[in-house]
Amino acid sequence: MEIEEIIDNLIKEKKYTELKEKLKEMKSADISGIIDDMNKEDAVIIFRLLSKEKAGMTFSYMETDMREKLIQSFTDSELKNILDQLFMDDTVDLIEEMPSNVVTRILKNVNKNDRKIINELLKYPDDSAGSIMTTEFIDLKEQMTVEDALERIRKIGTDSETIYTCYVLDQKRKLKGIIGIKELLLAKENTLVSDLMETNIILVNTLEDKEEVAKKFDKYDLYALPVVDNENRLVGIVTVDDAMNVLQDEVEEDFEKMAAMQPNEDGYFETSVFKHAKNRILWLLILMLSSAITGGIITNYENAFAAVPLLVAFIPMIMDTGGNCGSQSSTLIIRGLATDELELKDIFKILWKEIRVAVVVGLILTLVNGLRIFVQYKSLQLALTVGLSITVTVIMSKTIGCLLPLIAKKLKLDPAIMAAPLITTIVDILSILLYFQIATIIMGM
Amino acid sequence: MEIEEIIDNLIKEKKYTELKEKLKEMKSADISGIIDDMNKEDAVIIFRLLSKEKAGMTFSYMETDMREKLIQSFTDSELKNILDQLFMDDTVDLIEEMPSNVVTRILKNVNKNDRKIINELLKYPDDSAGSIMTTEFIDLKEQMTVEDALERIRKIGTDSETIYTCYVLDQKRKLKGIIGIKELLLAKENTLVSDLMETNIILVNTLEDKEEVAKKFDKYDLYALPVVDNENRLVGIVTVDDAMNVLQDEVEEDFEKMAAMQPNEDGYFETSVFKHAKNRILWLLILMLSSAITGGIITNYENAFAAVPLLVAFIPMIMDTGGNCGSQSSTLIIRGLATDELELKDIFKILWKEIRVAVVVGLILTLVNGLRIFVQYKSLQLALTVGLSITVTVIMSKTIGCLLPLIAKKLKLDPAIMAAPLITTIVDILSILLYFQIATIIMGM
Repeated sequence: MEIEEIIDNLIKEKKYTELKEKLKEMKSADISGIIDDMNKEDAVIIFRLLSKEKAGMTFSYMETDMREKLIQSFTDSELKNILDQLFMDDTVDLIEEMPSNVVTRILKNVNKNDRKIINELLKYPDDSAGSIMTTEFIDLKEQMTVEDALERIRKIGTDSETIYTCYVLDQKRKLKGIIGIKELLLAKENTLVSDLMETNIILVNTLEDKEEVAKKFDKYDLYALPVVDNENRLVGIVTVDDAMNVLQDEVEEDFEKMAAMQPNEDGYFETSVFKHAKNRILWLLILMLSSAITGGIITNYENAFAAVPLLVAFIPMIMDTGGNCGSQSSTLIIRGLATDELELKDIFKILWKEIRVAVVVGLILTLVNGLRIFVQYKSLQLALTVGLSITVTVIMSKTIGCLLPLIAKKLKLDPAIMAAPLITTIVDILSILLYFQIATIIMGM
Repeated sequence: MEIEEIIDNLIKEKKYTELKEKLKEMKSADISGIIDDMNKEDAVIIFRLLSKEKAGMTFSYMETDMREKLIQSFTDSELKNILDQLFMDDTVDLIEEMPSNVVTRILKNVNKNDRKIINELLKYPDDSAGSIMTTEFIDLKEQMTVEDALERIRKIGTDSETIYTCYVLDQKRKLKGIIGIKELLLAKENTLVSDLMETNIILVNTLEDKEEVAKKFDKYDLYALPVVDNENRLVGIVTVDDAMNVLQDEVEEDFEKMAAMQPNEDGYFETSVFKHAKNRILWLLILMLSSAITGGIITNYENAFAAVPLLVAFIPMIMDTGGNCGSQSSTLIIRGLATDELELKDIFKILWKEIRVAVVVGLILTLVNGLRIFVQYKSLQLALTVGLSITVTVIMSKTIGCLLPLIAKKLKLDPAIMAAPLITTIVDILSILLYFQIATIIMGM
């Protein structure tokens, strides 16, 4: 029996003691996944059986919809208990996704001090380091000994999101150094913190782009990163789990953009049919109307295909091959730029590489296809026309496919919009133009 | 002046003391980035100026090419120093990417005990948890007190990849529990480890797929994950930085597959022109030859477009719109499956959602396009033909776009191959068939 069914049965049979034991064995992330698919009444039952700490953890993993329903079912004291367990960054996330009446209830149930911090955190722009940081960290002073430091960690450790890295501040709360729990544990008890701390610190400003913040975690293999204000005062830290989430959100956003959709933060089923349609229609309209240009070009060569109707049969092949070649190149370049593997200054190196790849690929495709056409239709002229068109199309589409994302980057646009759909449409126009031009010349029309 | 230039100048002017100071201020990840672009001689100079620990760290961040060159320039004792600093998983990675003569030198310079462990680690399949784990972790015993445990951490902590989580083993090295450094620090000194440890442990088998391992980090917000053999003996741990790398590699692989390329582990510039061409040609050939089917269909309707040549002009629009609609759906479903947001059992729910989205999108596109055609060409028949074809194409392509990845998943194939390029080709064939069929009926040909 699946765990979902077991829990369902225990609720139906009101075997709450057994259910409580079952929940104790489970991880918060698993419980949250099950609650997300439950009705409100059952969800509340589960929640009341969880320990205070586990209830907070479970709540922080849940989806927006169910969180809203639960808050509306909670008593004030239950809500207060949950909020006490959440770290500041999770509380702020919660507030940002709830409707205003729920927000009012949340703010009413956090203590005055937290309310002040929350209001400060809510002011940071959506994409900034400030918006993903938490304010619960271990702060030490330079003149503390290792013994003092460990004492302080024992005192405030339970409420800190991480104790792995501690932050050494001066009286004005300016960040002077960082020190890992490993260094503290391995050092002698009477050593001064100032003698052990690392002063060459990787840090970010509150307004730094959160994607850049997440990339720093990846580059330097960090667990946590300090966030300072313009006066170098430590205001919060970002932890690696939040950085991972940012990186994943950015990747899914890129997948969506590269498939001609507007990025969407909500889940697939959470998004309504009309919202889905809205996210997809804009690019479809633009691309559909752009492909009318290709149609217009074809109309201009009506005489050509009236004379050789077979010419029309190769339009899909030319278009598809161009589109696929362009997508290959643009995908590599877009991802290379996103992961900082490729840089704008490499533009000529990239172009030169893509052109050489295009020549190799183009020749192979031309040879296979030219041969096929010659055998099938016994027409050297047709084989030459299509073959030459494919070579030219491949080189052209790979050039465009690598240049457009780089140009977008140069213009400070998101390279991801220069992906398969747009490249395909642009390449369509040019390849069909070239194809009929080449046909006209070779076939002497 | 950029840091690269500063370092370059210091080497040229042989100001090694100054250079050494400069390097002390820099992070290993940054130094490695600079060394990667240097010539071998300069790289060796830099390396000899780094502290032992920093040299090891820097080396672990570097690219394959330069690592090979450096090893060949190192003396045996220099190589030994570097290898001593590397964690087991990094040493194994290094061995896996080096040519055999270099591997022999590496194995000669690790101590006998490590060589045995390395040989064990090398046996794990490429995609398994065993292949990314490291063997340096803190092991505790159940009967230890907190004081004993901290003592042991102090003793073996320097050589462990993480001290944040400790693993409690019995005499047979079976995993009995885990305990965080936080719990140890916050507990009383004479408490028993067995009373504090968490016994409900998230763990993986050595042969578990590394992508599933990485997903566990994301789901449960872990820093490290124990890896056990079939007898539940702890053989290693995977740390969060390695899990992040796995997730990122998988994502880039998916981007490449979804753009009709064979995934490539090496960097863009590290990959030769012929290797690039090889990665791209297979799918291009398959897709090119498949589009000949669409061409064949068009040939069958030669009489239709001989009668109404304008019909040809709408081929690109029908094809592109179908391809784009299909790509949108397939991208959402492929990513949903990859991130476990969507499951196979949701197939009818997904299909029903996509069909409704398709109807909304299809109607808007038809309306805009029908109107344009009617105004431009004053032909109701043509407007109807193209309009109806677009509606049908959109619904068909979204259906195929969502079904094929799900079918692939059901057949235990990688859903990522059912992406834009293949979907486009399939949709092309069907949409052109439908288009000419509709034209024949409406225009009474």
